Amino acid sequence: MPLAISDPDDPRIEPYRAVRERDLVGRQHRFVAEGEVVLRLLLKQSRFRIESLLLAESRLGTLGDALDLLSPEVPIYTANRTVMDAIVGFPIHRGILAIAHRAPLPPVEELLSQMPGNALVVGLIGLANHDNVGGIFRNAAAFGVGAVLLDQETCDPLYRKAVRVSVGGALVVPFTRVASAEAMVQGLQAASFDVIALSPSGNEILSRVKPFPRTALLLGAEGPGLPPELLARTRTVSIPMSGGFDSLNVATTSGIAMHHLSGDD
Amino acid sequence: MPLAISDPDDPRIEPYRAVRERDLVGRQHRFVAEGEVVLRLLLKQSRFRIESLLLAESRLGTLGDALDLLSPEVPIYTANRTVMDAIVGFPIHRGILAIAHRAPLPPVEELLSQMPGNALVVGLIGLANHDNVGGIFRNAAAFGVGAVLLDQETCDPLYRKAVRVSVGGALVVPFTRVASAEAMVQGLQAASFDVIALSPSGNEILSRVKPFPRTALLLGAEGPGLPPELLARTRTVSIPMSGGFDSLNVATTSGIAMHHLSGDD
Repeated sequence: MPLAISDPDDPRIEPYRAVRERDLVGRQHRFVAEGEVVLRLLLKQSRFRIESLLLAESRLGTLGDALDLLSPEVPIYTANRTVMDAIVGFPIHRGILAIAHRAPLPPVEELLSQMPGNALVVGLIGLANHDNVGGIFRNAAAFGVGAVLLDQETCDPLYRKAVRVSVGGALVVPFTRVASAEAMVQGLQAASFDVIALSPSGNEILSRVKPFPRTALLLGAEGPGLPPELLARTRTVSIPMSGGFDSLNVATTSGIAMHHLSGDD
Repeated sequence: MPLAISDPDDPRIEPYRAVRERDLVGRQHRFVAEGEVVLRLLLKQSRFRIESLLLAESRLGTLGDALDLLSPEVPIYTANRTVMDAIVGFPIHRGILAIAHRAPLPPVEELLSQMPGNALVVGLIGLANHDNVGGIFRNAAAFGVGAVLLDQETCDPLYRKAVRVSVGGALVVPFTRVASAEAMVQGLQAASFDVIALSPSGNEILSRVKPFPRTALLLGAEGPGLPPELLARTRTVSIPMSGGFDSLNVATTSGIAMHHLSGDD
């Protein structure tokens, strides 16, 4: 049974208060999922445990039978738009929010050992932009990527905006963090992955690459790209572009490379 | 010689006032370009005539010799950050703005007749999101697309945000509007373009398509996609995706298809 909230200061909905300010500070053990598509994916998976939902009254009907997937002990709070906006601190047009618990990040060796013999894994190095990381997770889900590895500088895929831009891909594709780009390459090579570093200065052309059964795709930030010492230790691949124009967006680049390397070509 | 502006109400910088409010209304004959990369592209091209520049004093040095490309009669206004923000109506971190004149949109027959024998043209149908249109123009510039055709519902590529997201691609790739999606297909077929409509329900798989010398790629909005009557009259192509996940972003999709169709494969 939904629990109606009429007072924005009700202590039960404390985790939903001042969402943006908490986004900036970062949440240690929880994350916020918003919108219908993301919530439906969250309800279908078991990696992230849902703590509670906060829905605009008008959205309860929209979700309908999807809510049957929710454990009965998880509270569903409802509020009218005015109260919901007051709790959250800004107009929350989608009217659908959830708080879920983060899952522990597995050691990279463990995550890679679970990959099938035929797998594409993506490694992100220095990607500090949430839109880009969200976009890459969206593509990773679309192309069936087995796992995403993040270095220490890459931003949190469970940041609210990254989850939203990923259209829930961040909840679907397993990921973990590694200590450094070097540890990432070592872990991948130890698990028999052919490591491909995408770079404008790459030695091979993407469209001519025949992917190995286990392939890893490394992506760096748009400006600095991947560090030279990493390029020296991997197979480097470029996407040829029309002369003189600025490079592609990294999320788009990831989609082009995943499309080619996911074996459909 | 730069003209220093110290009064936000100075009538000379009238076109820069309240930039966001004017974005919403739309500009009939002009557009706003912002940021260094976009301005450098604007300075290098001849299609769009520059009316004036407004620069934060601190950015004058950054641009340096690039400004030598500017006709001497075009005024360069400078202001300190406080005055610039007051003129524009919000903090303009990049500190670089230009007002330029739109170019007349050529009839589609004329634009297509100028394409070489080997050309990729992109047609956009119902794309109302500026980020997506900007992203598609960025990809189009990167992959050397010859022209972009827009239907009546597709938004303005010269809208400030679209130009910015395109990283100037909207200033580089020729485009025009057509009366309808039907007129677009007719114009393309009359100019001997093989018309490919990208759709999740497409009959062919992108990676197996061998592009004709003249190929046109049609893209629709993420939700509704391309209209069925258009799909019935074109070659339909899909990008296979991992089961059950929401579709790719349309800008990413465009990049994947341009990469394949631009003949690099």
